[in-house]
Amino acid sequence: MSLPRFGRLRPAPENYLPDTLVNDIAASGLDGARRDFLRKSFVAAGTALAGGSAMAIDHPTPDGDMTILQPLRPATSLGNPVAHQPYGMPSAHEANLQRRESPGLTRRRESSISFTPLQGLFGIITPSGLHFERHHAGWHDIDPASHRLMINGLVGTPKVYTMADLLRLPSVSRMHFIECGANTAMDWGSPAVPSVQYTHGMLSCSEFTGVPLSLLLEDCGIDLSKAKFILAEGADGAGLTRSIPIERALDDAIVAWGMNGEMLRPENGYPLRLVVPGAQGVRWVKWLRRLEVGDAPYATREESTQYLDAMPDGLHRQYALIQECKSVITTPSGGQRLLDKGYYNISGLAWSGRGKIARVDVSVDGGRNWKTARLESPLLPKCLTRFNIDWDWDGKPHILQSRAIDETGYVQPKIAELRAVRGTRSIYHNNAIQSWRVEASGEVVNVQIS
Amino acid sequence: MSLPRFGRLRPAPENYLPDTLVNDIAASGLDGARRDFLRKSFVAAGTALAGGSAMAIDHPTPDGDMTILQPLRPATSLGNPVAHQPYGMPSAHEANLQRRESPGLTRRRESSISFTPLQGLFGIITPSGLHFERHHAGWHDIDPASHRLMINGLVGTPKVYTMADLLRLPSVSRMHFIECGANTAMDWGSPAVPSVQYTHGMLSCSEFTGVPLSLLLEDCGIDLSKAKFILAEGADGAGLTRSIPIERALDDAIVAWGMNGEMLRPENGYPLRLVVPGAQGVRWVKWLRRLEVGDAPYATREESTQYLDAMPDGLHRQYALIQECKSVITTPSGGQRLLDKGYYNISGLAWSGRGKIARVDVSVDGGRNWKTARLESPLLPKCLTRFNIDWDWDGKPHILQSRAIDETGYVQPKIAELRAVRGTRSIYHNNAIQSWRVEASGEVVNVQIS
Repeated sequence: MSLPRFGRLRPAPENYLPDTLVNDIAASGLDGARRDFLRKSFVAAGTALAGGSAMAIDHPTPDGDMTILQPLRPATSLGNPVAHQPYGMPSAHEANLQRRESPGLTRRRESSISFTPLQGLFGIITPSGLHFERHHAGWHDIDPASHRLMINGLVGTPKVYTMADLLRLPSVSRMHFIECGANTAMDWGSPAVPSVQYTHGMLSCSEFTGVPLSLLLEDCGIDLSKAKFILAEGADGAGLTRSIPIERALDDAIVAWGMNGEMLRPENGYPLRLVVPGAQGVRWVKWLRRLEVGDAPYATREESTQYLDAMPDGLHRQYALIQECKSVITTPSGGQRLLDKGYYNISGLAWSGRGKIARVDVSVDGGRNWKTARLESPLLPKCLTRFNIDWDWDGKPHILQSRAIDETGYVQPKIAELRAVRGTRSIYHNNAIQSWRVEASGEVVNVQIS
Repeated sequence: MSLPRFGRLRPAPENYLPDTLVNDIAASGLDGARRDFLRKSFVAAGTALAGGSAMAIDHPTPDGDMTILQPLRPATSLGNPVAHQPYGMPSAHEANLQRRESPGLTRRRESSISFTPLQGLFGIITPSGLHFERHHAGWHDIDPASHRLMINGLVGTPKVYTMADLLRLPSVSRMHFIECGANTAMDWGSPAVPSVQYTHGMLSCSEFTGVPLSLLLEDCGIDLSKAKFILAEGADGAGLTRSIPIERALDDAIVAWGMNGEMLRPENGYPLRLVVPGAQGVRWVKWLRRLEVGDAPYATREESTQYLDAMPDGLHRQYALIQECKSVITTPSGGQRLLDKGYYNISGLAWSGRGKIARVDVSVDGGRNWKTARLESPLLPKCLTRFNIDWDWDGKPHILQSRAIDETGYVQPKIAELRAVRGTRSIYHNNAIQSWRVEASGEVVNVQIS
């Protein structure tokens, strides 16, 4: 029999409440008063738990030091029936685990962002109800019976597909992360936001189902002697359009209708979105209405005036496509608080737009020493990977960091290394190592170290 | 460039609507009038789509035969803002894709079943909102701050854990199917229910996160010289209790709080359930309040008077644990209707409680000839596997079947083979090959062939 190995397991004064249990954490931005409130919430929760030991008990008292704590008293009444909710929802106790807008990010909420609460999630699948949002002109709930996808341009036979046409075709199902190119943008300068929801929450991961884009292009008779780019166009009011290099389009791109087992959610492109594994989120065009095959990039608005990387020499890096290897510790993370010394499971996420994660190292001393974390299965290309590592906190200040390495050998850079190449005026494509400082008080804060 | 291979691709008269688009399919049981209604729904949907070609168009008319169909007209207004739903929901157009009770199954809905609508799902992940339910006394939404887990019996130190204690411990995340031992029970006799939602819908698959049970037992100092069984007890009014053999408990069992990235749903055991990969669902005790280590099975009510397999010799098979290798075609499946000859993607699910799926074969002639289906990644042990295979329907009657083979070499049996061993009086553990007959009319019905 093989048992998992870990440090000093001491289960445990009931004084560490992960924010899935408190989970109004990080409800707002930089507000110090809010932090004080959260701190008090944790203390209050601890007290409530201690009080819980006085619950009425109708079961035999177990041996020894068990007298102060009892298992939960079982229900003495019938509960809710089956199909009470034909489509179920989370517990009322989890109501504060929400995707949240960072107020004031954009002038209108129809062109804003809502962030995934990574600090309260487990594993790699993002619940579809908490998938991050980035819209350019808001979302509509399109009737799939009216939806059409046109394919035109450098093809022998331009075609228009109904959803019924598409759903009849050979499909594939694959798990992939999607990350906005602007994820972690706020931290190009100095640490600006308090929690991992706002530093890294433009990141989600789902199982997508659809027809390979290559198959649709073949069906239309793509002219491979001339085709160099695909233009993807959405049906939203923004008419979002992006160029996709033909190699990516013919590789593992999917014209997807399914997400985590069911149809896409309306805010994520229902009934049809382009899935371009490993590419920045804006290429995964939502409410996909048209694909045009061309012989050059299209220099659309979103790729000629937006989504550019400002480089130190005054030029812009254009058409940056791939989300490079990156990782972040989600527990403990900014805004959480450790209330006692002892064992903690440090947990986080790693991903690479170029393939599988090969290794994740974790440091608790600001990068001087590194230990290799455990990776959870499945280990899939261009997909989130969950890592875990044991930590016995001595009650002193520590800097927690994670560093991912992908199967190409690329090592996630320090922020100073990234700035040395890309300068300090960028917004997009910050994949630097994230540092969380654990104070002696147990409070965890977002910091940068060079 | 390697493109997927498939038969005659003809995209396509808009006359096949998978029920994700119609999806009030199979809303009730054996009702013939309901079937007629569904048939008419499909025809009406087809007509509506043809009418859709007359939609107002403000885009250039493309070439040739494109004149009758256009891409969807883009939105001309701002849509909904981000975080319009802090916890998102499916499209209003998908509202009929629900988990459903089969009316009259049990005397009270608190001790009944709701079935997962497999006919409308993709990939392997079951959306948590559509996870099947089987309760014995209904469900409560337990406050995690009050919840406790006791471990007692043959251990050195009996303990009680709060949720805060547990969430601090080393965790694992793994994808597994859960299937009720009574899944497909209705078809031990003759085909009794019309759709895959009712024949196989006590089946779901999720990513579970929690602490390995072996680690908790180690922490309490389990006496391995005596321990033979674990008793798991739930906090529901039924006080559901089941015995788990110690080998299974120390292998890959998890005391889980996470499901598909978030906390368990209340109806699936929030805040804590036992995950026993590969074992029948009733062993995955929900609202887990106590684990007792013993030296013999406990012969509780649910294992001495219920969940028994009636064998041909008049005896009962007790403590049947593992869900054997099984598969089912979900599209096309009972209650659906093909309205035109030509290409179809036959899609389904395969699983085994003993490990990975090695191969799935599909027959379209009632088992005389078999072809090997494509398996989608990831291919994980004790997890659903999605398979797909091409089919060019000639418009004649056909019997569709799938047959799974797992990594142990076990081959999913025919119903006649299963009955030869287990008789005809069983309810539980029917893992026979499912047959769907496609009529010349295109209607798909549940049939049995020997």
